[in-house]
Amino acid sequence: MDIRIKIGIRLKELRNEKGLSQEKFSFICELDRTYIASIEQGKRNVSIANIEKIAKALDMSVYQFFKSDLFK
Amino acid sequence: MDIRIKIGIRLKELRNEKGLSQEKFSFICELDRTYIASIEQGKRNVSIANIEKIAKALDMSVYQFFKSDLFK
Repeated sequence: MDIRIKIGIRLKELRNEKGLSQEKFSFICELDRTYIASIEQGKRNVSIANIEKIAKALDMSVYQFFKSDLFK
Repeated sequence: MDIRIKIGIRLKELRNEKGLSQEKFSFICELDRTYIASIEQGKRNVSIANIEKIAKALDMSVYQFFKSDLFK
């Protein structure tokens, strides 16, 4: 599976666990809502700086973000 | 510490553990040697697709790449 798809699945899963809408989440991580949407659609080759922003907005470390069978 | 610095430290550490020069390593992961050098200098906001290439060249998963106190 393409890594971009995996990132999208993981983000959606974690965002939903937090009970956050894309809109609320994008506000917290200071990224555009359409950008968050396209990440979740597996369309983005996200940079590590944005992964870090996303992880922080999810109250987790970058290590925890990647701690999923998707990335093992 | 900036995430780009952390990525650089981690890559250099793992590449050295493998006993690979930057030149040999860049050949294995099909990325330019100067690009690898600048990642190790903490200058690059690396994309997840390139992190995956780097992890594969190190014979590890993306999860294992981030399994370091640097990212916890």
